[in-house]
Amino acid sequence: MSEEQLEVIYGKNAIIEALVAGEREFNKILISKNIHSDAKLNQIKELAQQKGIIFQFVPAEKFQPYAEFSHQGVMAMISPIKYMELEDFLAKKHENESLVILDGVEDSHNLGAIIRTCVCAGVSAIIIPSRRNVQINSIVEKTSAGAINHIPIIKVNSLVSAVQKLKNSDWWVIATEASAKDNYYNINYCDMNFALIMGAEHAGVSKSLVKEADFLVKIPMLKDFNSLNVSNALSAIIFETVRQKLVK
Amino acid sequence: MSEEQLEVIYGKNAIIEALVAGEREFNKILISKNIHSDAKLNQIKELAQQKGIIFQFVPAEKFQPYAEFSHQGVMAMISPIKYMELEDFLAKKHENESLVILDGVEDSHNLGAIIRTCVCAGVSAIIIPSRRNVQINSIVEKTSAGAINHIPIIKVNSLVSAVQKLKNSDWWVIATEASAKDNYYNINYCDMNFALIMGAEHAGVSKSLVKEADFLVKIPMLKDFNSLNVSNALSAIIFETVRQKLVK
Repeated sequence: MSEEQLEVIYGKNAIIEALVAGEREFNKILISKNIHSDAKLNQIKELAQQKGIIFQFVPAEKFQPYAEFSHQGVMAMISPIKYMELEDFLAKKHENESLVILDGVEDSHNLGAIIRTCVCAGVSAIIIPSRRNVQINSIVEKTSAGAINHIPIIKVNSLVSAVQKLKNSDWWVIATEASAKDNYYNINYCDMNFALIMGAEHAGVSKSLVKEADFLVKIPMLKDFNSLNVSNALSAIIFETVRQKLVK
Repeated sequence: MSEEQLEVIYGKNAIIEALVAGEREFNKILISKNIHSDAKLNQIKELAQQKGIIFQFVPAEKFQPYAEFSHQGVMAMISPIKYMELEDFLAKKHENESLVILDGVEDSHNLGAIIRTCVCAGVSAIIIPSRRNVQINSIVEKTSAGAINHIPIIKVNSLVSAVQKLKNSDWWVIATEASAKDNYYNINYCDMNFALIMGAEHAGVSKSLVKEADFLVKIPMLKDFNSLNVSNALSAIIFETVRQKLVK
């Protein structure tokens, strides 16, 4: 693995999760000499030893360029995440599963939070476009708190063509739209595979995708202030689908 | 207003919302000479002119120290937000209302997202402790996308004593706890005033507050990964309360 291909991940949880998941190759782990030992740091050292991964204690200054990342004095150089191919995903058997499709999410913190929510809510995979959407970077890895290692990410060149493939494979497609007639909780999410499309914070879901959707849903606002953060909007909807499945 | 008391807010939406709300005193608005005019910038200039607020065009370098804040080339020096007193809030008549209490939320982005979600879901006020919780700062204002101007923030010295006052005023208190028996959707949120306590991301709600709660609720996780971002956890619960009120 050449140095250029490596990604940097920060923070104790993110590193522990990546070590435990074991999907990605570690080049090395750097630990600041200035941080105190604690349970999580010991876990990192033990896991690294078990797996034969180098860890080095380095001066705190090494972390200075990354001050904005709340790195907790630990970082690791690892191989980039492996994306799943949509075709490989569809080739598997799916029953009453959910997918989340992100159309133009621009903020890394939001993407990290979305990944966590999707894992907690048992979403099977997340589809992102290869352009006009934030990509998996160090901030996403950090804010995902390691959740990135628990869910496949599918990167596609065209969301429209991805949605068409899903529909051809009997997935139902639901898009969020502020002007939709149905509230999100009026849909029955049980007994089907569905893909939920969440749009960019300001522009919403692209018209070309709205056109492809089987259902359009909105979140009713109790105040005339329609500006939910995209990860919070997703959370409201996806946990309603969980509720429906659990109370069924 | 002395210079030291001023707060800096960034970003077009945050500044427009503060101008429209008209609650806070503007000292001046600084606009980078390098940004292009657009509808929102024009709106800022018009609102400032109407209200007699100075705006200045300054070299882009003025914004350099704030590069991490995605300021969009606009910032304003304004008076700090005015907190509401709990006693003043309780003195008003409340019927089937909700409050959100934050116990140790540390991340500014999370607090900003929480404020937006609370406004969209019609929450009446947010209570934060004066210590061990992130305070309202520039990042919070920015990530709240102006929502901060649409909901009272109550700052208290002791959350335990605030909760006791709420209970004495016939508010029901609900705390989130991972080990709770009830799922959040098993509670009937209609026909009562309730306060929902959300805890710090890692530590959860403090034991002293859990002890005071009338109900404990959890969000069921479909995967063994219990680490929802606090704003997303809040969103799942608070929009379930909205759903219950709307389908009633």
